[in-house]
Amino acid sequence: MHKARLEAFSDGVLAIIITIMVLDLHIPRSEQLSALAPLLPVFLSYVLSFVYIGIYWNNHHHMLHAAQRVSGGVLWANLHLLFWLSLLPFVTGWMGENNFGAVPTALYGTVLMMAGIAYWILARTLIAADGRRSILATAIGADRKGVVSVVLYAVALPLAFVHRLLAQAIFVCVALMWLVPDRRIERVLPPAAE
Amino acid sequence: MHKARLEAFSDGVLAIIITIMVLDLHIPRSEQLSALAPLLPVFLSYVLSFVYIGIYWNNHHHMLHAAQRVSGGVLWANLHLLFWLSLLPFVTGWMGENNFGAVPTALYGTVLMMAGIAYWILARTLIAADGRRSILATAIGADRKGVVSVVLYAVALPLAFVHRLLAQAIFVCVALMWLVPDRRIERVLPPAAE
Amino acid sequence: MHKARLEAFSDGVLAIIITIMVLDLHIPRSEQLSALAPLLPVFLSYVLSFVYIGIYWNNHHHMLHAAQRVSGGVLWANLHLLFWLSLLPFVTGWMGENNFGAVPTALYGTVLMMAGIAYWILARTLIAADGRRSILATAIGADRKGVVSVVLYAVALPLAFVHRLLAQAIFVCVALMWLVPDRRIERVLPPAAE
Amino acid sequence: MHKARLEAFSDGVLAIIITIMVLDLHIPRSEQLSALAPLLPVFLSYVLSFVYIGIYWNNHHHMLHAAQRVSGGVLWANLHLLFWLSLLPFVTGWMGENNFGAVPTALYGTVLMMAGIAYWILARTLIAADGRRSILATAIGADRKGVVSVVLYAVALPLAFVHRLLAQAIFVCVALMWLVPDRRIERVLPPAAE
Repeated sequence: MHKARLEAFSDGVLAIIITIMVLDLHIPRSEQLSALAPLLPVFLSYVLSFVYIGIYWNNHHHMLHAAQRVSGGVLWANLHLLFWLSLLPFVTGWMGENNFGAVPTALYGTVLMMAGIAYWILARTLIAADGRRSILATAIGADRKGVVSVVLYAVALPLAFVHRLLAQAIFVCVALMWLVPDRRIERVLPPAAE
Repeated sequence: MHKARLEAFSDGVLAIIITIMVLDLHIPRSEQLSALAPLLPVFLSYVLSFVYIGIYWNNHHHMLHAAQRVSGGVLWANLHLLFWLSLLPFVTGWMGENNFGAVPTALYGTVLMMAGIAYWILARTLIAADGRRSILATAIGADRKGVVSVVLYAVALPLAFVHRLLAQAIFVCVALMWLVPDRRIERVLPPAAE
Repeated sequence: MHKARLEAFSDGVLAIIITIMVLDLHIPRSEQLSALAPLLPVFLSYVLSFVYIGIYWNNHHHMLHAAQRVSGGVLWANLHLLFWLSLLPFVTGWMGENNFGAVPTALYGTVLMMAGIAYWILARTLIAADGRRSILATAIGADRKGVVSVVLYAVALPLAFVHRLLAQAIFVCVALMWLVPDRRIERVLPPAAE
Repeated sequence: MHKARLEAFSDGVLAIIITIMVLDLHIPRSEQLSALAPLLPVFLSYVLSFVYIGIYWNNHHHMLHAAQRVSGGVLWANLHLLFWLSLLPFVTGWMGENNFGAVPTALYGTVLMMAGIAYWILARTLIAADGRRSILATAIGADRKGVVSVVLYAVALPLAFVHRLLAQAIFVCVALMWLVPDRRIERVLPPAAE
């Protein structure tokens, strides 16, 4: 039951985050096609953040599917992750409305990095609850992919001030790296007729 | 469990989309009845989009009810559908506030068309997971209704520039065509005492 | 399963409606207590609408608890109810920001009346699906309370133009009449150790 | 079933409250880092309210986990709690945008106090439904922590006018006091392999 409610609450928060981000696409006054042009960077930021929330939902879903126990610490580690993700609409809007400027891009990367760290903490807390020899621990292992992502975000921060597109390219690459669902967990879990 | 959480997340996103669209009905300053007149096209756009989201929720619900397996590809095909539907509040507001102008109407039709294609992809992905002889494959078959809808949206796009009401009429007709829930699935599934 | 997802979607929509209404309480610029004074009518409208959404959630919950079958018609009757309730944030804000003026009050009453009629249709559709001798049919019966509410709303509409407080008094009285949960259903259903 | 739907609705409302609060972080026009400086008090208010909603979700979750029966009175006691929490985005925004001024701080404390009282009423209503010798009654007992919190909020109100930081310090202390999940319930309930 703990797990079901944790998932329901996380689903709710992620569903709202993904949907309110679209409110930053302010409706233009003019009905000309050209009126959409200034919205392009906002739209591209939206697409990037939509994919990121989709990745988090997807992996969160796989990870909790494999988890057996939900401790009090897990509830807070999960809220900590949701906190950083809840800041995504703000930084997405700021980055988009300023045409991927250096400072907003660096802040966007910071929020992604903090969310990555929060996800890593959540994974550790879940493994601590399940035990080192649990299905989850075997499936996640050393979580190299998660660690690499956080390192890449950290590299993107100073690069945003060198050339903003370098940082954006890293954000896109990390997203592509995660777009594939977490095969590690699918590999360990037997295929179930759900 | 995969299916339950996929439905819960989709329900959340659709519920938020359907509800935040009403935020485009900006509260008028004056308390006169005449102050509502300029809101009429916004209101009509809202009704149309509400019905469309209702149709998607309804058919999504029927389709997943018949589906047996949810693969990793299904999760992303579903997010792809939700992405296009998440743009509906924006295009609804733009179309309504510009009194069904040609460009906003064509963009509205584009989003509907992309959502229709995304729904078709989701259906194919679900059938691929369940197998060609599954209940779902039998129920959906060649999905002529879905294909016809996408073709009609494609026809509506140039028509929006000929006369905007022609495109609107097509949107309304497609909605009416779908308002009847997907009998194909109800026909194949035995009636259950739910 | 149909019923579970219908409830989940309705819960989502009602939860969002009840929460976005608070966005009409615009944050005042000044930090003086007096800055809150102009918000009082908006706040009172919010309380009234919060109670109404609470009543609908409560009775919707009791009614579906007693229902056995969910047909395709029920899904649409339910969406129809949600449509009228989704307009509540708009009319609540308009009524509150215009200090309970006659026209906004009459429109507020119209939306309540339409929601009342939609609820009545939903009850009839559910009874039609369950059969005349079902638990639900016995519990709801002729639904005098629902009919009386709709009549009272209809009476409130012209009264809003005579004196706005008369209409408001009726809205409050109907709410009080419903605040008691639907004992009819609790009386018929045996108490369950849930 | 009553309990499941009560939890789902509460989760939905809490998820929306926690997420729309971030909309008060208005996106600055400038892309300079200095443009974020005026947002700092709004951000700090957001963090405080996020933690409070997290605490309520967490304890609400533990309390309902231990509860056996959900009466009609419980549904309304729960809505009463959600009403006060739904005002949190408004008072959070007002307090943050006015740099923790005395009156907004006192109003923030008032809403926290009313929510604390509402939570206490909900606990009593649940215990009344379950009986004095239920698991829940044993777990919650005299609820000293809840009573102390309400008293501390009441003390914070006048202190906001002496020095605003005194009231803020109390809000932070009460939050820290609750951050630990309700061990009383975990102690009484046997550890379950969930």
